[in-house]
Amino acid sequence: MKRKYSVILGNLGNTCDRFCSGYKEKLSTMVMLKRAAAIPHVAGIELVGSWDIRPDNVKEMKRALKGYGMKCVSIIPDVFADKRYGKGSYSSSDAKVRKLALDYTRMMSDIAVELDCGTINLWPGQDGYDYLLCADYEREREWLCEAVAKVADEYRGLKFALEYKPKEPRTHSYLARMADTLLLAQETRCPNVGVTIDTGHAFVAGEVVGESIVLAKRAGNRLLHMHFNDNFGSWDDDMIVGSVHSVCYLETLYWLDRCGYEGWLSMDQYPYREDAAGAIGESILWLRKFDAILQAKRSAIDTLIAAGDAVRTSAFLRSVLA
Amino acid sequence: MKRKYSVILGNLGNTCDRFCSGYKEKLSTMVMLKRAAAIPHVAGIELVGSWDIRPDNVKEMKRALKGYGMKCVSIIPDVFADKRYGKGSYSSSDAKVRKLALDYTRMMSDIAVELDCGTINLWPGQDGYDYLLCADYEREREWLCEAVAKVADEYRGLKFALEYKPKEPRTHSYLARMADTLLLAQETRCPNVGVTIDTGHAFVAGEVVGESIVLAKRAGNRLLHMHFNDNFGSWDDDMIVGSVHSVCYLETLYWLDRCGYEGWLSMDQYPYREDAAGAIGESILWLRKFDAILQAKRSAIDTLIAAGDAVRTSAFLRSVLA
Amino acid sequence: MKRKYSVILGNLGNTCDRFCSGYKEKLSTMVMLKRAAAIPHVAGIELVGSWDIRPDNVKEMKRALKGYGMKCVSIIPDVFADKRYGKGSYSSSDAKVRKLALDYTRMMSDIAVELDCGTINLWPGQDGYDYLLCADYEREREWLCEAVAKVADEYRGLKFALEYKPKEPRTHSYLARMADTLLLAQETRCPNVGVTIDTGHAFVAGEVVGESIVLAKRAGNRLLHMHFNDNFGSWDDDMIVGSVHSVCYLETLYWLDRCGYEGWLSMDQYPYREDAAGAIGESILWLRKFDAILQAKRSAIDTLIAAGDAVRTSAFLRSVLA
Amino acid sequence: MKRKYSVILGNLGNTCDRFCSGYKEKLSTMVMLKRAAAIPHVAGIELVGSWDIRPDNVKEMKRALKGYGMKCVSIIPDVFADKRYGKGSYSSSDAKVRKLALDYTRMMSDIAVELDCGTINLWPGQDGYDYLLCADYEREREWLCEAVAKVADEYRGLKFALEYKPKEPRTHSYLARMADTLLLAQETRCPNVGVTIDTGHAFVAGEVVGESIVLAKRAGNRLLHMHFNDNFGSWDDDMIVGSVHSVCYLETLYWLDRCGYEGWLSMDQYPYREDAAGAIGESILWLRKFDAILQAKRSAIDTLIAAGDAVRTSAFLRSVLA
Repeated sequence: MKRKYSVILGNLGNTCDRFCSGYKEKLSTMVMLKRAAAIPHVAGIELVGSWDIRPDNVKEMKRALKGYGMKCVSIIPDVFADKRYGKGSYSSSDAKVRKLALDYTRMMSDIAVELDCGTINLWPGQDGYDYLLCADYEREREWLCEAVAKVADEYRGLKFALEYKPKEPRTHSYLARMADTLLLAQETRCPNVGVTIDTGHAFVAGEVVGESIVLAKRAGNRLLHMHFNDNFGSWDDDMIVGSVHSVCYLETLYWLDRCGYEGWLSMDQYPYREDAAGAIGESILWLRKFDAILQAKRSAIDTLIAAGDAVRTSAFLRSVLA
Repeated sequence: MKRKYSVILGNLGNTCDRFCSGYKEKLSTMVMLKRAAAIPHVAGIELVGSWDIRPDNVKEMKRALKGYGMKCVSIIPDVFADKRYGKGSYSSSDAKVRKLALDYTRMMSDIAVELDCGTINLWPGQDGYDYLLCADYEREREWLCEAVAKVADEYRGLKFALEYKPKEPRTHSYLARMADTLLLAQETRCPNVGVTIDTGHAFVAGEVVGESIVLAKRAGNRLLHMHFNDNFGSWDDDMIVGSVHSVCYLETLYWLDRCGYEGWLSMDQYPYREDAAGAIGESILWLRKFDAILQAKRSAIDTLIAAGDAVRTSAFLRSVLA
Repeated sequence: MKRKYSVILGNLGNTCDRFCSGYKEKLSTMVMLKRAAAIPHVAGIELVGSWDIRPDNVKEMKRALKGYGMKCVSIIPDVFADKRYGKGSYSSSDAKVRKLALDYTRMMSDIAVELDCGTINLWPGQDGYDYLLCADYEREREWLCEAVAKVADEYRGLKFALEYKPKEPRTHSYLARMADTLLLAQETRCPNVGVTIDTGHAFVAGEVVGESIVLAKRAGNRLLHMHFNDNFGSWDDDMIVGSVHSVCYLETLYWLDRCGYEGWLSMDQYPYREDAAGAIGESILWLRKFDAILQAKRSAIDTLIAAGDAVRTSAFLRSVLA
Repeated sequence: MKRKYSVILGNLGNTCDRFCSGYKEKLSTMVMLKRAAAIPHVAGIELVGSWDIRPDNVKEMKRALKGYGMKCVSIIPDVFADKRYGKGSYSSSDAKVRKLALDYTRMMSDIAVELDCGTINLWPGQDGYDYLLCADYEREREWLCEAVAKVADEYRGLKFALEYKPKEPRTHSYLARMADTLLLAQETRCPNVGVTIDTGHAFVAGEVVGESIVLAKRAGNRLLHMHFNDNFGSWDDDMIVGSVHSVCYLETLYWLDRCGYEGWLSMDQYPYREDAAGAIGESILWLRKFDAILQAKRSAIDTLIAAGDAVRTSAFLRSVLA
């Protein structure tokens, strides 16, 4: 299977943290797109709703993407940076906010259809809670489930990929880990609802991505999308792939293939202080390295996984890494 | 609802760590039972298979429990300390080991029936993996699922409560968190398979127990059993309830009630260097304190949870704690 | 000893995260000051350089503080949000940036003198590194040390309180934990260099604050300042004191007294979605509760600490909490 | 500089965890020694006091080591598995226990002299605390410091390498991280007291080993010994080097050289379920791989570290790893 690499457009821009409003200059959407399209091996782009794509620039974006030969891989509705959703979007205890979020997601779904983009990547980052004894987990989860079910049912031609993350910006997210997100996907009873793995989110969740891929397969082939980055394990540092970990990426690619994943490998980083195109490009080159190892050694890896002998696996890894 | 408190028998004994084979003297099962039964408010006992209960001592144990007025709350088959299961029990890649584990669990289920104990608490601690690229997550999870389904189907009068824990003794457990355990429970298609929450395991998993209780309810009322202890958040320290955290226990009791939990509150600690009966007794007394607050203030808590205002919740907590 | 409570002014304002540029409206410095001064028990204010205090508003601020009867407790030079310091301030590999940071700190020190504020709270948040094999730990730490020594030597009438934090905004900070900060303080050979404990930073560092206080005492009475907040243990959530943990605050106050701390108890929170004055006020009220317990029970606590019996400590805690 | 590889003898044996008293058969000291000596590139052995070396077997051990051409690299007094030290050894609140620990350490120091072993590796694993408000951090740290100073002063020909670890077997260790251990080493005023880095302990502490090496150099060249292993970041899993992380080992070797470390590289693992000699041998082979990269590319790494550009470092790492 040929790997397809893509990038989230905003990663090319002026990423902020909570102290500093950006370490670089601000770039226009079209400048970011030009830079993204120039990264070797990139064939697709993810657009954040409101930031990168709105009703007023759909036609322009469609033309620009075509001009660069880029596919729109997903749209990520902005229900996390817009302060109207600051205390929750789909699960807000305010019915008006829930309606606002739903209508906005419909608008983004319409745009997705227009851009021939098959996937809405839903990261409801504000849907969660900060303090104990301050949230009705039962009602709020139900509201979240209902909203996803409703929009997924209305747009059956689109896939809705739920992106999980244990925390940030809330201290606890409702879609926190692979398995709870699968439960919610199943509860929607919509076959077009599934999950996005962000490798860094999975690391923070204590997951081994290979195992998470298997969970998604067992729950009805629900893995819809992949975001790649690396971190030090306790926070979503959004770093270059391979800068902290190595082995796990090789294993991830192996399990993606074994479980029949045919989607995109998208880069999702926050290169606060780095050259953005360079940092994203590095991630793709690392993944291609790991992929080349996998292609050359797949049957050896099959054997190692069946054998379950850490010493043999280590010897193999030494022969292909380092 | 009246709270029912119980204790795992071995907690009264000579708990080891990986360096020291025990800080106290070894005690016989009957001495431990006597001490457990003497802890105020304890009405039930959990027995670890092989250690505390075997075919050869079932009658004696039944008599002893009756003598102390104690109920056998659960049996915990030992598939974690017996080195034959060192590389996995139900999910071992060795079919003979899987059969051994299954037959052993049947034997323990027979004993449960004989002791009029309705629950098998299954903690398959060795079912997991240590190293990357050393386990077939797909086949092993399926074997685990099949084994649980088989025994649960054979013993429909028993409840099988799967206890999850992110790590230890393996670096990664297959039953790691609430949601993946619920997925497996559902996959068994057995209505008598559910989940045990160990509060400390949940803390290490990054879970808020109240939310985990809600997940179990949404997945078909699958919360079957509760183990209580406290820790510093990164490891299963198995400490006295309330020694690190406070608020979360109050919240846990609230959600147990709201979700209709009617099972036992069982203490599961490793009082390595403490007087065991004293340490376990403290946990129960803390829970009774939190419960008294809940009984007195339930409607105020309902209001706080609906309001979602951290400042109000804080003011309330100051008024009932500290 | 009478407790003195203060607050960091910006906590009253529109706190951002990396996604959302603020959940509230922006407030002027003077509105924030008015609100801060109105929080019960607050007697002091910490000002962030450039944001709250600059050469152009020193006189106005001095007057305003006097008008509210507030003391300026510390000035926190902004070497973390100004993007010129994005790759390091005092430890930047660019000598011009190091000079800029030093001159700026001198300017803030002059202002501190003018405001009769005895303490510069130095949080060099950008001094650290993100990626492996990308920083010269040896030279950069030396530059950091030299800069602190230089300014501390020039302003001997001021105290320089180094605030440590394991990570954020860098993946690794040079001043990461109590002990490495003490080493650096000693290396400056300046008696007026010491440490600020932020309780949340200490939690993330895996520290027990009581022990950190003892380390600072042993290293020459180097504890100069205290910031208070709470979190879930893995990130600097900057929450209301007491919302997650309880016992540790009581212990912290005990050790502050035993080690002779006479400084301020300052609140440092990010009440993203909460009423700021309410959230900060709650922290103070919690600390006053814990303090009242300490005043009433100090000799009992002395006894417990000498006894080292977790069961007795637990019984005591039950009697004063819950 | 030529690397010198060694191994802790007990790693060859039947490692336990707190549930299972061992996954293998028990081996005699001499069988373990034979196996250790047969691991390629091993030239030295570390012996745990009481377990491996006692007054009664010194002569035999000396002969055996000579026979295998092995050097005794360090002796590790057992003050962690002996239950008499269960509540602390050098810092026990019981003066008799402190004396016992000191006398025992003297005995081990005498043996070290007799075996021509220059280093006592002190891991006071029981010196710490489990519960809040249960330890007098001030007096206990002072006792610990006094004991180390006393024995180091008596045996000036030996080096005393203090091994730090954040937790386990206590929930908190007094020697928890590099910097607090350096502070204590300095407080002893003994030039022959320094620090052992165990890479896995450093990972759990949130440290980057390269930076910890620099801290030790700045504090007076106090790095005396190195233990190598790998883990998943949150617990001392004691795994094969390179099985989770890669880059950090290359960086560690770089900084060892830059800071003039001339000691041993010792393997410290718990190969619970693995062939022990194989698992330990793998770690050495990984280190030799990383070392070969370093030897070939040292000046390139010098340049990268000075440049501080993550994209360039990533490109370099891709060229030497993967």
